[in-house]
Amino acid sequence: MNPSTLRINAERFKTNFEALSKIGATPDGGVHRPTFSQAHLQVRAWFRELAAEAGLEFNIDSAGNHSALLQCADPEAPTLLLGSHLDSVTNGGRFDGAIGVLSALEVLQTIKDAGLYLPIHLEAIDFTDEEGTLFGLMGSAAVAGKLTPQDLLGLRGGRNALLSGLSRAGLTEEGLLMAKRQSHQTLGYLEVHIEQGSRLIEAGADIGLVTSIVGTNSYRLTFLGRADHAGTTPMDARLDAGQGASAFTLAARQQVMRNYPQCVVNIGSMTLEPGAFNIVPERACLSLEFRAHDEDTLDQLERALLELAEKEAQRFNLGLDIESVGAHQPALMSQQIQDVFHRAAKSLNLKTVPLASFAGHDAQSMASICPAGMIFIPSVDGASHSPREYTEWQDCVNGASVLLHAVLSMAIG
Amino acid sequence: MNPSTLRINAERFKTNFEALSKIGATPDGGVHRPTFSQAHLQVRAWFRELAAEAGLEFNIDSAGNHSALLQCADPEAPTLLLGSHLDSVTNGGRFDGAIGVLSALEVLQTIKDAGLYLPIHLEAIDFTDEEGTLFGLMGSAAVAGKLTPQDLLGLRGGRNALLSGLSRAGLTEEGLLMAKRQSHQTLGYLEVHIEQGSRLIEAGADIGLVTSIVGTNSYRLTFLGRADHAGTTPMDARLDAGQGASAFTLAARQQVMRNYPQCVVNIGSMTLEPGAFNIVPERACLSLEFRAHDEDTLDQLERALLELAEKEAQRFNLGLDIESVGAHQPALMSQQIQDVFHRAAKSLNLKTVPLASFAGHDAQSMASICPAGMIFIPSVDGASHSPREYTEWQDCVNGASVLLHAVLSMAIG
Repeated sequence: MNPSTLRINAERFKTNFEALSKIGATPDGGVHRPTFSQAHLQVRAWFRELAAEAGLEFNIDSAGNHSALLQCADPEAPTLLLGSHLDSVTNGGRFDGAIGVLSALEVLQTIKDAGLYLPIHLEAIDFTDEEGTLFGLMGSAAVAGKLTPQDLLGLRGGRNALLSGLSRAGLTEEGLLMAKRQSHQTLGYLEVHIEQGSRLIEAGADIGLVTSIVGTNSYRLTFLGRADHAGTTPMDARLDAGQGASAFTLAARQQVMRNYPQCVVNIGSMTLEPGAFNIVPERACLSLEFRAHDEDTLDQLERALLELAEKEAQRFNLGLDIESVGAHQPALMSQQIQDVFHRAAKSLNLKTVPLASFAGHDAQSMASICPAGMIFIPSVDGASHSPREYTEWQDCVNGASVLLHAVLSMAIG
Repeated sequence: MNPSTLRINAERFKTNFEALSKIGATPDGGVHRPTFSQAHLQVRAWFRELAAEAGLEFNIDSAGNHSALLQCADPEAPTLLLGSHLDSVTNGGRFDGAIGVLSALEVLQTIKDAGLYLPIHLEAIDFTDEEGTLFGLMGSAAVAGKLTPQDLLGLRGGRNALLSGLSRAGLTEEGLLMAKRQSHQTLGYLEVHIEQGSRLIEAGADIGLVTSIVGTNSYRLTFLGRADHAGTTPMDARLDAGQGASAFTLAARQQVMRNYPQCVVNIGSMTLEPGAFNIVPERACLSLEFRAHDEDTLDQLERALLELAEKEAQRFNLGLDIESVGAHQPALMSQQIQDVFHRAAKSLNLKTVPLASFAGHDAQSMASICPAGMIFIPSVDGASHSPREYTEWQDCVNGASVLLHAVLSMAIG
């Protein structure tokens, strides 16, 4: 057969997607599958069964990453990894991550069903905790050997959530730290993902060729004041932690919009303690996340935001506790793989456009041990991390199809 | 005996206070007894036992208010109520409310032990939910007939907390609504309380004669935006509910300090949803409480703050949901009872000073059905609603002693 005529099984792909969307489904059409939640453990078991039904081998590494394998006869052959993740953010959407894992699986099934012999091993991988319920890009960072014992002490989700989650999943910290793969065994890493923005639709393009992935730093900031009676304590005698946190929340946005127009910042959660109507807040704890496309800018932005937090704390006579809870360096995608994706898209008459990614992805971790590449498919209204997340089914098929032909191109030229 | 020589049993009073402080004690020296929490149910049972040990009758009304009774022979005689509350705020202090209830009980015991016959009934009462875990001044508002079915639909603590709390305590909504006492049976209401401010100490006074009690309104405000990916959504395309809530938090304080210098405002809690590092907050829910000493000012301040919330919501293109969750009108204390307290203090060589109360108190509810009066005793550093809350023991004894002689004066002149 001529590999260039090979096509994925769009019906099977869709059946799998619909089954997957039911696991952890929310009433508003999204999914809720935070890492190691019951729904996430359920989706992991489902993926394992699906691989078995497809007649593929199954592997779980010491970081809990799940893989379906299509191996060639030569044990010394390198492996080409395809994948994404099946966890979701809190009340997230159905497409984020899911399309990447199912595209990878569909590619392996298509090649297997065609009886096509490739001189490399193929692996469809579901990485653990991409979204950062615990750490973010955790499974891929483990595979890339980038996870340190220090990382596991200060995490976005807190250490207790890590320990109880690992225990529920039957995993260990030691396992996370010894999951590194060897570069020479890894031919590359390819990922299909929804854009989570609206640039593809604005450009009238089908496929985004990802050029680089943003770096993301996360902090937990706690402004420290004093609990007092909210009636009897004069306004000017209060040490109100909520004032410092609110002032920082406003100023951080202004700072980024004014001085770092290529960057983004988010204060996604805030808690005031003790949290009563009639008590001046003693502690205000917020989660801070910011992103930049190069390391220098990321470092500058970090300094600017932490200085701002200090300044607002001082303005209201508050203490400030700064805890780093995760850093993911920016990464360039392989030019060679961008070219492979471009040619594959062109052979399918799909229009491509190069894009930088403002979302973190597992390809970012993988880029440090092998050539890594990603394509984006369009997100309607750019919505993501929300039940409003939506991608036209034809675009999902396009993504899986480009992935298939990129794999064939890398395997047999 | 000459009633003017009667003295409370300071040792017994202290023993009771120390036992009480252990119930719901926190490691930092405070207490945590929110309404109908386990510790609160425990303290209620403890008070009941203490009344029994003192040989006093015990009564619980349909609003769950606990009373120890020292009745005179004439069933038609009016009742003089003395009291306060045994619930606490979240991680509160040992003195707030507790000193008032124990002073009341000590006065009854002292009069009983002395075999003194008074021509009135005395009642030492522990009012339910003074602090507002559920509604605030709930037990006294019920006794005053001020609680409406509408009040029980929108409360500071939320309706679920009310229903589950009532169930734990064996109480009902119907009971709350039918606990009103008749004015003609009620001679007056007297309360001893810590100042929760530092004006007494600054004035070098022992006893504060409360002239009026502040009115307090409470709202739950929810700013409504849109959940989006915190990386891929451009800063200027976000509908970030946290920005509106933070801007309001800052502006409310500025508004009050600039235009309402006699008033106070507090944003005591804030929650961002869905509450993840990497999701733009869709909802920001905050608790708003503000206080003024007269109704006109309270109304003006209410309009000003709600307009401010609308303005900040519009500035960030957010929706706004406004829920009233409790209003307590300001109340004047009885001039006659202020005079009685003043004379009682003078007879004990204690220095008094008149003070308006910035804290809400059960006396505020009671003022609508009978002459009501309060005295304050000094709070070290003015700290309250905090484990730092502290009052010198001699000041507690002074408070109970003034209460005793005020009671004797009202009963026998």
